This record gives sequence, C-alpha cells and structure tokens, in this order.
Amino acid sequence: MTLTTQGFAFADLFADGLPAAAPPWTGFPRFNFVGGHNDPGLVPVDALADAAADALRADGDKLAIYHLGQGPLGFAGLRGFVAGKLERRGIATSPDSVLITSGSLQGLDYVNALLIEPGDTVMAEEFTYSGALAKVRARGAEVVGVPLDGQGMRIDLLEARLEELRGRGIRPKYIYTIPTIQNPTGTILPLERRLALVELSRRYGVPIFEDECYADLTWAIDAPPALFGLAPAQVIHIGSFSKSLAPALRVGYLTATEPALGTILAGKNDGGTGAVDQMVVAAYFGRHFDDHVRRLTKGLHGKLDTMAEAVAREFGTEAEVWAPAGGIFLWLKLPDEVDVRQLVGPAARRGVAFNPGPDWAVDPEAGRSHLRLCFALPSHEDIRAGVAELAAACFETFGTPARGANTVRK
Amino acid sequence: MTLTTQGFAFADLFADGLPAAAPPWTGFPRFNFVGGHNDPGLVPVDALADAAADALRADGDKLAIYHLGQGPLGFAGLRGFVAGKLERRGIATSPDSVLITSGSLQGLDYVNALLIEPGDTVMAEEFTYSGALAKVRARGAEVVGVPLDGQGMRIDLLEARLEELRGRGIRPKYIYTIPTIQNPTGTILPLERRLALVELSRRYGVPIFEDECYADLTWAIDAPPALFGLAPAQVIHIGSFSKSLAPALRVGYLTATEPALGTILAGKNDGGTGAVDQMVVAAYFGRHFDDHVRRLTKGLHGKLDTMAEAVAREFGTEAEVWAPAGGIFLWLKLPDEVDVRQLVGPAARRGVAFNPGPDWAVDPEAGRSHLRLCFALPSHEDIRAGVAELAAACFETFGTPARGANTVRK
Repeated sequence: MTLTTQGFAFADLFADGLPAAAPPWTGFPRFNFVGGHNDPGLVPVDALADAAADALRADGDKLAIYHLGQGPLGFAGLRGFVAGKLERRGIATSPDSVLITSGSLQGLDYVNALLIEPGDTVMAEEFTYSGALAKVRARGAEVVGVPLDGQGMRIDLLEARLEELRGRGIRPKYIYTIPTIQNPTGTILPLERRLALVELSRRYGVPIFEDECYADLTWAIDAPPALFGLAPAQVIHIGSFSKSLAPALRVGYLTATEPALGTILAGKNDGGTGAVDQMVVAAYFGRHFDDHVRRLTKGLHGKLDTMAEAVAREFGTEAEVWAPAGGIFLWLKLPDEVDVRQLVGPAARRGVAFNPGPDWAVDPEAGRSHLRLCFALPSHEDIRAGVAELAAACFETFGTPARGANTVRK
Repeated sequence: MTLTTQGFAFADLFADGLPAAAPPWTGFPRFNFVGGHNDPGLVPVDALADAAADALRADGDKLAIYHLGQGPLGFAGLRGFVAGKLERRGIATSPDSVLITSGSLQGLDYVNALLIEPGDTVMAEEFTYSGALAKVRARGAEVVGVPLDGQGMRIDLLEARLEELRGRGIRPKYIYTIPTIQNPTGTILPLERRLALVELSRRYGVPIFEDECYADLTWAIDAPPALFGLAPAQVIHIGSFSKSLAPALRVGYLTATEPALGTILAGKNDGGTGAVDQMVVAAYFGRHFDDHVRRLTKGLHGKLDTMAEAVAREFGTEAEVWAPAGGIFLWLKLPDEVDVRQLVGPAARRGVAFNPGPDWAVDPEAGRSHLRLCFALPSHEDIRAGVAELAAACFETFGTPARGANTVRK
C-alpha cells in the first residue's frame, strides 16, 4: 500500500531541481553485476554474531550516550584498530587523528564540503568512481580527467593538465585518486608514480584526495605505501570496511592533518556512525582481520577467474579486459560500435544488470563502449550464465561479439 | 599525537563560511545535563547482545549486499516493526511507506532538502529543538515562532501568524512541531488542538512536519493520535529510537505520502543506515518494546522527580518549571535578570553543563533566562549535587537564587 495525497498540493512546495520521485524498488535482476556488493557466502556470520554479542556485553551501556561518550571521532576501539591498519599502509597516525564515517560516501561528502564551492575544479582519473563524480558535480564543480594506463594515473599527463590549468589561472581543489586497486580499472599505482604525484601536488599546491576503499583486497604483493603516508600534509585519506567486510555495515574512516580534520569535525552534525556497526567491525577485525582478508581475496580471485574465462569465452577478442590486481570489478571495453547505454535495456530483458562505462567516466563519451562488471555477488554459475546472456544481448543489439568469434564458444 | 601541515597551505583552499576547526574532544563534565543522552543503567545490555547475535545468525549473509538487498527504504524487518508501532499512534501505513533514517537528524535533512530553498520561511514552536533550528537556518530560511503554553502550540496564535504571513504573500514551507512530548517543554498537544492544526494546515496549504522523537516516553495516558494519522496527505512524520532505546544507535524513521517519500528517496545517496544497528533494534524491540518502554519511562520519571525536587530545593520560587508529561528534559525559567549565556562559564567551572535557552528559542532573547536540563544520564546523586552546584554558580554570578529563598534549603 502506498499512501497518496488527496487535494493537498504538497509538490508545489518542493525545492527546485530535485530528481523525479523514485519508483518502488522491485528487487535485483537475476544476474546482478552492478554496484559494490560482496559475496554473501564469505560473510563470517557466526563469528560476527559472536563479536557483536561480546562487544555489546562489554560496551552496551555506553549506547545510552551519543558517540558512546567517546567524542565525535567515533568508537575508540575502532579508531585504534584503524590506526593500526593504517600503519601497515605506511601511515603514522593515532586514534585521535581518525574519524569514523558512515561509509566512505560520508567521507566524500565531508571532503567536498571542506573544499568545494560552485565553479571550482577538481581532477580525477579519467575513469573513476561514479559516486565521487556525482557528488562533485552536485556541488557545481567541474572535473578534469587524467588518463590511465595499466599502472594507474599517468603522472606525466597529470603534470601537463596541471600546467595547463595553471596557465588559465585555475588551482584545482584536489586530485581525487584511487591509487590502490583503482575503481574501475583495478590497477595499483607503483611507488615511483606515487612519489611523482606527491611532488606535483606540492609544486602546484593541490592537495590529494586518496580513496583506499579497495586497498585491502590485493591478489598478491602488498601495495606501495599510501600517499598519505608519503606526504601527510598534502593528503586527505579515506577508506572503508564495505569491501573488506560488508557494505551494509556503513563504516568507513577518514584521516587528515589539522586544520582539515578539525574543520571537518566542526561541521559534523549527524550524531555519529551507527554504534553497533562500529563495535562489530572493531570486535571482529580485532581478532580476524588477516585471516578474513586472506579468505575473502582468495574467494574473490576465484570469481574473477570465472568471470575472465566467461568473458573470453563469450566475447573472444572483441572484449579488451583490464586485468585487476585485486578488488571486485572487471572493467572492459567492447568494440567502438557498441554504445553500452543502448545495451542496458536488452541486457535487462535477459536478466543482466551492469554498470555502463559513461557513468564511470569523467567524459561520458570516452566510456561509451566500456562497462564494469562486479563479480563478487553472483555465484560462479551465475557469472557464467550471466556473461553468456550479456553477450547474447550485445549480439542481438550490435551484431557483436560475432557468433563463433572464438574457438571455445559453446 | 595530532599531525600538522608543514608548509602546505591547505587551509587556503577551504570553502568560505566554514566553522573554525573543532578543538580536541576533552570528555564530559562531571554533571552533564546537556544533550539527549539516556540512562546507561537502563540499556538492556544482555538482551541486546542476544538480539544482535540472533539477528546476525539469521540475516548476516545479507550484509554482503547494500541495503541488505532489500532496497533503499531499509531493513524490511525493522520497517515492519515501525509500521506496527505507527499503527498504535493512529497511523495506517505499511512497511513500504517507511524509510529508515540514520537518526531523526537525517530525517530533518531529508525534509529540508525536499522543501527548503534560501529565503523560505518555516514555522515552529517558539521554543523548539536547537538542531532543527540550526539546520533550517543553515539553508538560508527564516523561522517564525508560534507561542506555547502548557498544552503545546497555541493554535489560535498560529492562525494569526499564518494570516499575517499570507498578508505579506508568504506561504511557509512547513509548520515544524513536536506535538507529543515537546522539546524542550515536555507538553502534549490535546486532540482538539491537533484537529485545529490540521485544519489550518489544509486551509493555508502549509504542510506539517511532525517530529515524534519522544512520543514513546509518556508518563501516563497514551497521547492523542499523531498528526500524520489525522491527515496523512498534509504531514511528514519522523521518529527515532534514540530516546526509546539508545542514541548511539543511529536509527530513526520517516513516513510520508507520495510524491514526497519517493522524491526524498530519489535524492538518497548514503548507502543506507547501519545494518547491524537496524537489525538489533528490530530483533530486540520485536520482542521487548512494551516491557522496555515501561521500565525505561519508570526509571526516567524517577529521575525527573529527583531533579524537580532538587530544583525546588535549590532555586525555590525563583525557578519556573514546566512539568513535562514524559521525556528526558526539564525546561525552566530563572528570574529575568539571569542571562543564562553568562551562566555557562561559571557553571562549567563547577562541573555543570546545561543547554542554554537561547539555543532552543526561535528568538534567542526570548530564551535568555531559560535553560534545559537533561536528567536521563546522571545518577540521582549527581542530579542532586549538580543542581546544587548550578544554583551556587547562579548565585555567585547573579545573586539569585537568594540564600534561604526556600525553607528546605540545606
């Protein structure tokens, strides 16, 4: 039952420029390659239940007090855990410099509120997180893209863009980057590029906004140190437990030097992040971070293999795939004649949802033949079947991938 | 350890108009009568631990999926509970018309984003929730106050103000009201005033924004039906579990008719409310709502008695007290010569914190001699000792309450 108004012109009073009302939610498609969901089979359900019960028995009485009586930065137990985790990323910090956020989305909001005014400019990787793009643009700022290759942001081209902007009298508010498991391409920025990036930031007086949401999920070697560790005065750093544990837990974190952190804190007026969510993460990861991340990345890597095989089988050489060094996404490009925006409907009719490249591109046209597939949520079987359906939808719409384009095709 | 910048002019890039950086948090004063904290001794710690563990064992795998895979309205189990709770407030609704929010603060943000633009006008009770006032003003809107008496908003004077505004061509965006345990006065609006309010809303085409954060905490009789139940098409209704359970749980709710609800939903981009917080509330209150609320209100009423006695003992006839019909606050007025803003410092030096009336008043000057004392957090002993310290601070600053002003004074 949905209530409706009767003769009361409520909508006349709505603010200008709001989006149209959302239709009722109708559930997920059968083959859901959209968004940043994780693998339900890899949620450590029993251990989380134990952790929640233990944490509540230890600190439950503090729930009566806003922020658990520990100040607006968040639950001290979790801030302590985060500070230790950041140390392993080369960041010397303390629990008093860590702000717990309601997911990294709130971190994006805080940084944008700190720095962005209408008419401002920010820089970002040419393909990047759609939510970050949307939030910057909603504040009336322009995004300038920096090309990527298999090693992340092209620092030589960043320098060229910075110089060009300086020539036009523009000092960007920040360089937004996801250096460690880039979203959507899955690259890791090597140390030498990190050092060069930090040097450019210093020289041009443009801070770096470092988003490490996926940094825990690397397949192999540890990534180079976080940018914040290399130049704390120039960087604001955010991260999240959405990917390393679960996205319905709305728990992320932000660290920055003063006065940035204190100014963000002065504007914070949300009553804090859900306390039990914070307590569960601290209690569970306090005991199980390494073994959970090891188990999770192993499972995700297996699903990536399944998806990469399915894409190779179904699309053959007509898909150019970025091999991710970790994470939960596969980013790929179909032939130029495929405009993925035209593929959304036909795919949906076959039960397949994917993220269209234009939403993940600073210049939407540059992403017109790209798409992002999340492989964490669906089963191996659904990955195979869904990619086959996607290829069929693509063939019936664009005549590609050509039937028999590759030898292993069923 | 706090990191500081070194030679990188980060602050030059901050947006205009931000507040000054927050100083480090230094903990609570000894006698903390500030804010909306609850009684730590009345948090059902063991039952919450059991509820959390049960809920996670039942639904923990869904944490892998944003919004638990149940859409942006929130956890279906909690929406079902809220819909049932709203029915008892005279509201016919369904889980599909309930949006779970991260505390009622997010509800305020959503309603303001839906309706308010700079230059707009809203109406509110002359003394009202400081957070609501701050959020409206931050959006550049003006607040027009409506006087209160012991039965809540003066509807006759509301009509006069609406007529006056209409004469100036102003249609307010909403009438913000806390009809059931008003904050800060603790009044309950009688049914006849509710009916008259709804009729004025209809006649002037001004929606009602009903905040029921305290409605579960009445001492005696059940309150009259919620305004939303009387006229759903004209009202947006919010509530919270901060007061009936615990404020560090960031769980509230919003219900409204279409297109208001769907338009709010279309602008929602926070990834949802903390899932474990939602699951704990649903699991615990699904079994224990009535017995918990009964136990909690009994405990709070006892603390009110202690505080009212302490105020009578320490301030005698020099304090005019609003006797609350429920909730966690005592609102009182000291003699006109007392400007409570001058009392904050002396009280703090004696370990006492209180909410100054001007922050809770549409016209700050009208609240200059008022203050709000929260009695839920401190122990009975600390209530007595803290009120004595407050009176001493007041005497040393303003010469009132006169020593020996009342017979029971120690």
